[in-house]
Amino acid sequence: MEKFRRLKEYFRGKVSLVSYSGGMDSLLVALVSRYYGRYTLAVTVDNGFFPEEVIKKGREIARRYGIDHKVVNFNYLRNRVICEINRNLKNRCYICKRHMAKILLEERERLRNTFNREVIVVDGTNYDDLSEDRPGIRAYREYGISSPLAELEIGKEEVKEILKFLGVPIPREDSCLATRILNPPITEERLKRVYEGERFLASYLGLEGYFRVRDFHNIALIQIEEKEIHKILDVNKFKEIDKRFKEMGFERVALTLR
Amino acid sequence: MEKFRRLKEYFRGKVSLVSYSGGMDSLLVALVSRYYGRYTLAVTVDNGFFPEEVIKKGREIARRYGIDHKVVNFNYLRNRVICEINRNLKNRCYICKRHMAKILLEERERLRNTFNREVIVVDGTNYDDLSEDRPGIRAYREYGISSPLAELEIGKEEVKEILKFLGVPIPREDSCLATRILNPPITEERLKRVYEGERFLASYLGLEGYFRVRDFHNIALIQIEEKEIHKILDVNKFKEIDKRFKEMGFERVALTLR
Repeated sequence: MEKFRRLKEYFRGKVSLVSYSGGMDSLLVALVSRYYGRYTLAVTVDNGFFPEEVIKKGREIARRYGIDHKVVNFNYLRNRVICEINRNLKNRCYICKRHMAKILLEERERLRNTFNREVIVVDGTNYDDLSEDRPGIRAYREYGISSPLAELEIGKEEVKEILKFLGVPIPREDSCLATRILNPPITEERLKRVYEGERFLASYLGLEGYFRVRDFHNIALIQIEEKEIHKILDVNKFKEIDKRFKEMGFERVALTLR
Repeated sequence: MEKFRRLKEYFRGKVSLVSYSGGMDSLLVALVSRYYGRYTLAVTVDNGFFPEEVIKKGREIARRYGIDHKVVNFNYLRNRVICEINRNLKNRCYICKRHMAKILLEERERLRNTFNREVIVVDGTNYDDLSEDRPGIRAYREYGISSPLAELEIGKEEVKEILKFLGVPIPREDSCLATRILNPPITEERLKRVYEGERFLASYLGLEGYFRVRDFHNIALIQIEEKEIHKILDVNKFKEIDKRFKEMGFERVALTLR
């Protein structure tokens, strides 16, 4: 709990803008900032890469805990950003976060003018995230966005612990749908399709752990972790999934182990 | 057996060059031509799209039945044809057969000079093959290559019947490996890899029916027909296959139903 104490210290007296997705990391940051800092605005950029439900859920959670929350609509799919990303899909996270950062800094300007004092911009990157090469983190660094959890060496398990301690239920992890599209172009249709596929699989097979539906040239690549893969290893279920996914518009349906 | 009688008639007195793959169709044509015609040369173009074993097996079968057999080496992978095919993968069958046809017509010239009489060039296309849109058939037509089985309305089942009647075992169906490569380029390495994968699967799972390993951007797409798919629906087998295929150089391994 020493780390939790230092996290509270981090925000004391400060006006913070939190890059907020509704996931457990940014929720913890927003909560601590809200209750121990001077003022907190949680900002979600609705860039079109997350399902509407996720944005809505984030809004509800923020409301439940009395966190001021603003959704900025900047749908990449309806502006030139998607072209930039589709030309350079491997750098999608970096490109995306750069645009996000710019928007967050604009919002910071507004907040600064309102409060007439310094505003810090922080995100939910935790200590464990640093061990992976996340180009998105690099972009945020370049724009001076800080990651208190990472700085205070608070990892994933500790985030869960603190939320538990605070009596806050851990929200379901929703990751960016764009990472499911393995070849360009990312389109609204393909994002919707992988999401629909994942929702169908989760309920049809009763999946609880990690699984993904990815779209590679209109092939649905279904990845289910080993301990749950037995749930799909049934000819009739596989046939039903094949049928449903083709109705969604996939051309082939394929099961992968990893 | 009326059709068999007409097939024998077809070759009576003729010198024939048979486009011979060692599969059941061209084997039947070569056999009937050999025993009821004047002279028969079976020609196999080794274009690099069939495994060596298949060429060898074809040669052995021809020898067993006393059919003169010539293998012409024209490996697409080592000349410009592969570029033509990779630029236009959807037309691969048409492009391939056009080159095959040219080689067969050259061989016909040689044979014509030797015998100083007309030589017909025939292939094994059967009546059932006509119902599919096979661009390869179109190419052969354009070059004046005839398909006696198709002309005499002898389908797949009748081919089997006649071979059985003649006491000739039905050879295993080996199809062109290039059809397994779903995106360009076709390379020797990728052809070898799908073949190796299919041989491994056949023996590891004891497959008897139709199955395919296809290569789509280095993903191994394993298709097993429904009545045998239970053989792979086992986590440990799937893991072993995943491991083996990755050793072969595939990046992902995926199971498809169709």
